Amino acid sequence: MNILVVGANGQIGRHLVAMIQKSEGLQAKAMIRKQEQANYFRELGAEPVMVDLESDVDDIAKAAQDVDAIVFTAGSGPKTGKDKTILIDLDGAVKTIEAAKKVGVKRFVMISSFDTTREAIQAAPSSFSPYVVAKHYADEWLRGTDLDYTIVHPGALTNEKGTTKVQLAEKVERGEIPREDVAEVILQTLQNDKTIGKEFQIVSGDTPIKEAVQNS
Amino acid sequence: MNILVVGANGQIGRHLVAMIQKSEGLQAKAMIRKQEQANYFRELGAEPVMVDLESDVDDIAKAAQDVDAIVFTAGSGPKTGKDKTILIDLDGAVKTIEAAKKVGVKRFVMISSFDTTREAIQAAPSSFSPYVVAKHYADEWLRGTDLDYTIVHPGALTNEKGTTKVQLAEKVERGEIPREDVAEVILQTLQNDKTIGKEFQIVSGDTPIKEAVQNS
Repeated sequence: MNILVVGANGQIGRHLVAMIQKSEGLQAKAMIRKQEQANYFRELGAEPVMVDLESDVDDIAKAAQDVDAIVFTAGSGPKTGKDKTILIDLDGAVKTIEAAKKVGVKRFVMISSFDTTREAIQAAPSSFSPYVVAKHYADEWLRGTDLDYTIVHPGALTNEKGTTKVQLAEKVERGEIPREDVAEVILQTLQNDKTIGKEFQIVSGDTPIKEAVQNS
Repeated sequence: MNILVVGANGQIGRHLVAMIQKSEGLQAKAMIRKQEQANYFRELGAEPVMVDLESDVDDIAKAAQDVDAIVFTAGSGPKTGKDKTILIDLDGAVKTIEAAKKVGVKRFVMISSFDTTREAIQAAPSSFSPYVVAKHYADEWLRGTDLDYTIVHPGALTNEKGTTKVQLAEKVERGEIPREDVAEVILQTLQNDKTIGKEFQIVSGDTPIKEAVQNS
């Protein structure tokens, strides 16, 4: 299975590409923005492909045309201007979804935010609400397609080492989760068709990731 | 006909409320954010109602429950932070649409931007593209409803006095239009059911507004 990782140079993305490359029968195509990011992926044996998420659907479609699945784990991040939130987290996601439809890639795994419901928008602190709004509409757009999607809603991300155990359900208590464990959840999700059409929240917990995904 | 004007204190909104109040059989409810904005509308004989577009659907629904039509002409404006674009121009619009559905107000006139197509997003200068993205998704959301909507796409807005004449069609050449003329187009649109389910661009031109709307 050939997997396009959109946002490969992000912290979850880098873990995920490494895990994909270590997995029998899986191969990653790492969608990145800058040439200087490419070496990390080449050294892992993954194929880097340079596409800016602010470019148009056709450019993304070109990157997606020979893959079997797409993971969207890009994010504008806290360091960019606030105007990037709508351009990357919403429009970048929707363009990636449209690119998937265009080239006929059915399998799509979206890395969302922990809670993107309307209630969560209203409850969010004002500095965070634009991000929640962007993720809300990106998730809504994906739900409206007939892609084989899974939407993953991770808790507060940390850079701790992965524990390989999570709590995973449609609704869980808010909590933290290492980015490395999120990447492992994505890896298992890609390999488990039971997750198609589902969405779930994840935080650190007691269940081995593979088992948690199987019970999703 | 009782009309809720969302964004009444904006420049188009203030013209529009004044025109509504001068029109036989029409009555405006002016949705505004601050108490100190209310007097202008009271003096026109309109009913001010205080609702912040960042509050939830129920608050907007309450303001909309006794009206026959809703006009969305709110905008975050160039003076607010860029994070407001997604909160007001996109999410504020969608919440207003959802409020209309909730209380069963079918007629909805959306004041959009001149061109909100994907091509326009890609062509926009980077400082403007977040706004075009926000309007793109708001328009898309409205098209996906079964409301009796009209989407008005005005050219570059000016504060010139209205000429009462426009060019109006699905596609027109880019150009300017006084805000006062946009308000008059909205007024005629509200009173002409031929415009239901349609969208059109408008710039200054040679056709009297009422006739242009009738030929839409």
